Order: sequence, then structure tokens, then C-alpha cells
Amino acid sequence: MPWLRNFVQLSAAFTKQRSPPTRKPAAIFGTRPSIAQLLQHYSAVARNNKDPGLDPTKGDEKPRVVVLGSGWAGCRLIKDIDTKTYDIVCVSPRNHMVFTPLLASTCVGTLEFRSVAEPIGRIQPAISREPGSYFFLANCTGVDFQNHQIKCQTVTEGVDTIKPWNFKIAYDKLVIASGAQALTFGIKGANEHAIFLREVHHAQEIRRKLLLNLMLSDVPGVSDEEKRRLLHCVVVGGGPTGVEFSGELSDFIKKDVSQRYSHVKDYIQVTLVEANEILSSFDDRLRTYAIKQLTKSGVRLVRGIVKDVQSEKIVLSDDTDIPYGVLVWSTGVGPSPFVNSLEVPKAPGGRIGIDEWLRIPSVQDVFAIGDCGGFLESTNKPVLPALAQVAERQGKYLAKLLNQVGKAGGGRADAAKDIDFGSPFVYNHLGSMATIGRYKALVDLRASNMLKEYRWRDLRAGLFGAQRI
Amino acid sequence: MPWLRNFVQLSAAFTKQRSPPTRKPAAIFGTRPSIAQLLQHYSAVARNNKDPGLDPTKGDEKPRVVVLGSGWAGCRLIKDIDTKTYDIVCVSPRNHMVFTPLLASTCVGTLEFRSVAEPIGRIQPAISREPGSYFFLANCTGVDFQNHQIKCQTVTEGVDTIKPWNFKIAYDKLVIASGAQALTFGIKGANEHAIFLREVHHAQEIRRKLLLNLMLSDVPGVSDEEKRRLLHCVVVGGGPTGVEFSGELSDFIKKDVSQRYSHVKDYIQVTLVEANEILSSFDDRLRTYAIKQLTKSGVRLVRGIVKDVQSEKIVLSDDTDIPYGVLVWSTGVGPSPFVNSLEVPKAPGGRIGIDEWLRIPSVQDVFAIGDCGGFLESTNKPVLPALAQVAERQGKYLAKLLNQVGKAGGGRADAAKDIDFGSPFVYNHLGSMATIGRYKALVDLRASNMLKEYRWRDLRAGLFGAQRI
Repeated sequence: MPWLRNFVQLSAAFTKQRSPPTRKPAAIFGTRPSIAQLLQHYSAVARNNKDPGLDPTKGDEKPRVVVLGSGWAGCRLIKDIDTKTYDIVCVSPRNHMVFTPLLASTCVGTLEFRSVAEPIGRIQPAISREPGSYFFLANCTGVDFQNHQIKCQTVTEGVDTIKPWNFKIAYDKLVIASGAQALTFGIKGANEHAIFLREVHHAQEIRRKLLLNLMLSDVPGVSDEEKRRLLHCVVVGGGPTGVEFSGELSDFIKKDVSQRYSHVKDYIQVTLVEANEILSSFDDRLRTYAIKQLTKSGVRLVRGIVKDVQSEKIVLSDDTDIPYGVLVWSTGVGPSPFVNSLEVPKAPGGRIGIDEWLRIPSVQDVFAIGDCGGFLESTNKPVLPALAQVAERQGKYLAKLLNQVGKAGGGRADAAKDIDFGSPFVYNHLGSMATIGRYKALVDLRASNMLKEYRWRDLRAGLFGAQRI
Repeated sequence: MPWLRNFVQLSAAFTKQRSPPTRKPAAIFGTRPSIAQLLQHYSAVARNNKDPGLDPTKGDEKPRVVVLGSGWAGCRLIKDIDTKTYDIVCVSPRNHMVFTPLLASTCVGTLEFRSVAEPIGRIQPAISREPGSYFFLANCTGVDFQNHQIKCQTVTEGVDTIKPWNFKIAYDKLVIASGAQALTFGIKGANEHAIFLREVHHAQEIRRKLLLNLMLSDVPGVSDEEKRRLLHCVVVGGGPTGVEFSGELSDFIKKDVSQRYSHVKDYIQVTLVEANEILSSFDDRLRTYAIKQLTKSGVRLVRGIVKDVQSEKIVLSDDTDIPYGVLVWSTGVGPSPFVNSLEVPKAPGGRIGIDEWLRIPSVQDVFAIGDCGGFLESTNKPVLPALAQVAERQGKYLAKLLNQVGKAGGGRADAAKDIDFGSPFVYNHLGSMATIGRYKALVDLRASNMLKEYRWRDLRAGLFGAQRI
């Protein structure tokens, strides 16, 4: 089935429009409606309970686990859930999972887009096979915790003939794994002009713009200044994503641009802007090594705070202008409007507050995993970092927990009150990695138990020559 | 260089918007400005001769062949041109060639998009290597035959930060290979709602819509009638493209939809609408066979004339409504607005009139090949069909002719007047092929010399079981 292998790539285009036409009620995952708008919508739909949907499960049906989102956390859970015990319904505006650590490599073609994405139907075949299991390409627009029900709206951006369609789903267990959204710190123009690097369509847009600019800069009469602007790739944010993307870009320039765009090869440049240290979570020696390697590859490192983003330049807080052709933004993530709209106790930083079993303690049968959830202060545990390895292991833990609960007869709504949930979730950090281009990568194992397995001299001060996948 | 293999796929997205924002001067390949607009624009740029560009070649430079278009004709010429004799400049809104006969197979994933596209820079490496050779992602907006010069405008659809840029190119030889455009016979709504099947982005749009509709039809509460509409694929035009696409679709339904979309597999249907006979250029027996096979595959054949296209249905001349979810239009091609705007004698059907050496006889050093050119009535030769095999062989012939002229010292503008052009172009039809799904194809060799090489019993009444590529 070759079509299936590419299915994901294609469907990524569903959400390609960066500014989908505003509709009321607005989709929550992708756009940013105000809380007031959301509440207004929610009370409107609460009054009108006639939307079609999936009714509460009956005695002869399997209990239903509804999963919001299709990222690391949601997909791991979907993969591991026992489909003999539960029917599974996934609601997400994206019908595939993205292998985010390799996304930067797709922007310049080191990897193909479809290599970093996997369709939900392949992660859990029961979704297309079982009569009670579904994937819905939709956003969740509200949760009625009391009645064990969510409201959804189909995602139809870019297809004019199809109107958004509202429906409801009753759940026995609800897992919120809807992720976070890119932070722009309210900087004017960032949402409008910068490209994030979180979805396949972002990578596609970066590649498209990069190649278009390479071609346009070759047109007769374009001034040297304009050529330099068109071919100036500016990356804001020196975390692993920003550094990896800068490294990939410099590889691309060294190898491919020199050969295929020889007319303009001397005009292309990569600049990485960071307010503090790059790779601040890594060990000092690794950071020094990364700076040396990136500089050697031709990446210009600029220490600065962006205060304004315009269509062809960014302005730093010291009023320096940096003209750009492609602007990539990668300064971390924060809570999404959907998470903000949920009326449940929050963890520090605004995430959905969870206990050590990843439950929302104030309501029944609802869990939050991945970047959207964080331990409540009452647990005395820190909010875990927004990393794939956290999300993935939470998904794995929760699938196992739900499977146990289901087998113990607690699968239905409100049926798990007296069931022992077993050991709480414990996170063990395995270490951090970041590629920096030129077949080199950093590996930081300080906080990891893996460290014991390596001798220091093998680590060569923490640096491996990583083979590109 | 894996990035390069995918370069084409990406860049196809440059022209993805079906209705690019109207600009003045309008791009001619993609949009449809009126002749008045064009002339007005042209006279405006003629007065203002300050646009930057490539000046006429000088004695120490190679003569310059400018090729408009990157289809079968243009790319074959670009491939075969002697880059030691000429510099080559290609101007096209598309940076790759599309292997059109296999485009239908990409809509359902039988083939990957990039498998049917080849970047210009790979067809002719001199374009990225030689200092005087270029590819410009642009539309030609006017030709000044007297001064051996064309006007161009960059293609920047979808990239807001880049303004269209005007430039001019002086040519020694000009080859117009800009192709034709899909015919809609002035039927209301066809351009707006139907998807053509001529470019990679068309195939991408079909695939996207098909998969989106498959997902949307699975949403709770969608009525049976709406499910049937969403999953009704209507193909207008029973030529080889329409038949091949219908066959591919029925394969997709039989194999992939049954397996991956089992919830909605009973709602999907393909209808092929044709005003006359399907595959009218093929032999009667082949046609009968095709009808039998398509019907067996579940394709509904409807004889009818479309009079109106609306967003969710087409209306036939007998007032029958046919609701659709995906509408594909393939009813042949006709002259583009650019060809219409050229003030040269035309061939029957409105194509650029050419002589037997593929020259435009009224002007110096200008040739037209492929679907945009046709023999003048004065040649007493019929206008050749708009087929890849015609275009490709015209490109091959003209490259050889130009190489000879160049070597004989006639490469410069106005330098070939006294040079013998040798044998005229003669077209020998090799036969026609069309796949009809289920690994079956038609091969019609009636008009071909190849027929002699096969015995009738081998042909099995003209039918081969074709292996899918």
C-alpha cells in the first residue's frame, strides 16, 4: 500500500494554512480564540444538546477511551492500549504522529517528510478495523467533566465546500494529550512572519521558502543587498531545535547550495539569535564545543533579545536590524488556549494539574499526559520538561494503568473509584542529545543512569560523532 | 543529495494556489488576464525600458537560447541542447518537468509525487553550473520580436514578503514551449470547483481532498446522503486521463479503502461523465473492452453534457444533478492566454502558427514546439495532437537543428538567415496507450509502424496486461 506510506505527508497539508479563516466557534488546537469566546461557545453548545455523536457505551460494548491529540504521549498510549478491553477514539487535528527530533532534518531534505511521520491508523490498526474505534480529524472544543462528554468540531481548513461539523463523544476514560504551543512572548509580528518548527507543514514551509528564495535571488537585477536578505536564514532560539536546524542549514549550504545554486552561493548565511546561552540545559563543555563547531560551519551566533518582527527584518532590543529571507522561531512552548480554557486546577506554568497517577484529581476518569499536563504543587514534584521522552513514557505508563483498571472491571465511567492504581509515575531522565551538523552531535548524560555504563574516556568529554539516521 | 530528489515536489507547491491573487501586470501562464490588459501592460513596459535583465550577448559570450516552459517539449530541448555552443535560459513558473502520463497514479498513492517529476537542474546540469545559463521561476509577460527580447515577471504566489519582480531577457534564439491550458468550454463554476489533472499540485489536491473526505465521512452524525456525496468521485471527460484516473480510483477503493476505511467503504463510488464515447481516439474493440473492465471495477459510466458546476454538485444538460465530493475535470486542452496574446499568425485552433521547421515564419529566430504550436494552414499539414510524444520529438528535433545552426555560425540573433535548416520535422505516430486499473491497459497501434513488429495473436485483440511501473 504505497499510498498509505505517504498518506501522512499529504494530510499534513490539511493544517497548512498558517492563519486559518476565523470561524465561530473557533478551533482550539490551531487558532487562538479568547477565553470569553470559548466560554460563550461552550455555554451555547451546552444549551443545545442536539449535536450528533457517540453515546455513552452500553453493557454489551467495550468501555471507550477517548484520547485528545496525536503526539508522543497520545500515540504511545494509543499504541499500547489493550483493544480487547477498550474501544479507542482519537480526536486530533492531525492524522499522524510527528517524530519531532528529526523534523529539522526534513527542512533541507536530509530526511523526507514522510520519514518523520506515522499515520495513526498504522500505530493502532484497531482504529480502522474495530467497529467502535475511530480517528476523528477534529478539534475538541469543550469538555463536560460532569457528564463524561466532549464536544468536537471537524477540521476542514482549506476545503471550502465542507462546513465545520459539531459532534459530541461520551467517554469512559478521557486522556488529554493535546500538547503545548510555541511561545512568542507577545512579540509583535512573530506569529505572523516567523515559521515554527513543530509540525510537518512547518518544515514544508521552510523548505519551500528556502528554495523559492534561492531561485528568486538568481533573478537579473536583484541587488546584492536584496540577495543577502533573501538568503539570510535567521533562527531565533538557541535550544536543541534551533541549534539542530542551524546545523542542518549550514550542511545544506556547504554541500547542496555550492553545487546546485552556484550563482548565488556566496550570498547565503545562517544567523542564530539567542537571548541567553545556547543549549543552556547542556553541560558547559558541550556548549563550548557546540559553539566552536557551529562557528566553524559558518553559523553566526548573535546574543540578543528580539523586540519586533517585521516582514523582512527583525529588530533587537538594542535597535539592531537583522534583515531575513527565512525566519524560524523556536523559543520553547507554553499552554495552549484549549488548556487555558479548561476549568481545572493548574500546575505551575499553567499546565493541567495532575497527580502522581497522571489523573486530574478534581474530576473522575480524566488524565493529562505530555506537554499539556504538569504535577500539581500538592504532589511536591516538579513540573517535568516538555520533552518527547517524558511524554512517551507517560503514554506508556498510562496505557498500562488503564489496561489494568479495565481488566479489574473499572473500565466504565465512574467505575474505577475503588480500584488500586498501583505505583505512581516516576520519571527517570535518560540524558539529552542534539545534532549540530557535519555528522556531529552532543550527548549529555549527566542526569542519567546510563552514565554508569560508559567510561569517561569513551565519552570523549561527552562528544560522539553521531551517524546521521 | 536526498534534498534534491524532493526539491521538485516541494516547489510544485509554489503554484499550489488555484486562484493566485490578481496583480497587474498579471502573470500569463497561470491566470487569465484579458487581451486588453495584456496589451496595456505591454505598451506600458515598452515605454519604460528600465527593467533589469540579461543584455544581448556579446562576441566573447556564447549565443543565448531562451526556452519558455518546462514541459515535454521544452525539457527535451533543454536536455539535448549543446551547452558548449549555447548558453541556455529557461523561464517557467514550474522548476521541474512532470511525467504527465503517470500523474493519475499519484492521486491515490500508487506512485509518489516526486517519482513523476524531475528538476530542470537535473535535466540540464549546465543551468546551475554555467555562468551564463539560468533557470528563472517566472512567467513571460510579453515578447518583443523586433528587438529579440522578452519581458518576465517572477512567480511568488503564496509568499507575501516577496513582491513580483520584472526583468527582461535578450535572446538569440527563442523557443516557445509554454504549453496549453485545460478547456472548460465556458461552463460556469468549472474553473472554480473542479480540479484539473495537469500538474503535481493538482494531484496533491485530489489526494488531499479524497483523504479528507474519507475522514470527514466517518464523523458521527453525518447523514448517509452526505456520506455518499463526500465519497462520490466524479470525473468529467472520458479521454485517456479521465479513464486512467477512474481506473486508479477504483483500484484504490477496492484495495485500500476496504482495508483502511472499513467504516465507510460501502459509500464510495466513482462516476465517469462523458458527452460522447469514452476513449474516442481508440479502436472500437479496445473501447468496448475498456467499458467492460471499468464497469466490472465499479466505475459508473454516465453519458451526459455538463451545463453547470456548483460547489457540491454538477448539473447535466438534462437537469440531472450529480452530487460530488471530489470533481476532476479532464476534457482536453486549448490555447493559453499567453498564446492568444502573441500577435503572430495562428494555426487552426488558435495555436502559434509554425512552418515545417517549427519556426514562426513572420519573425526571426523564434520557434514554437509542443501543445502551444501548430502547423500553419499554408504548410498543408494537420495540427498535431496535444500529446507528449509530439512535444518530446519536436524538442529533440529542434535541439538538433539549433545545435547544427550554432555550429554553422548561425547561433546569434539574425545570423541564421542564410543557413540551410535541413530536413523538416516529420511526425510518426507510435500508437496510444491507456491504463484502466486492475493492472490492465489498452494499447492501440493502428497508426503505428510498430504494428508490423507484432503478430496479431500476440496482441490479443490489442490488449496487454500491463505491469504497473
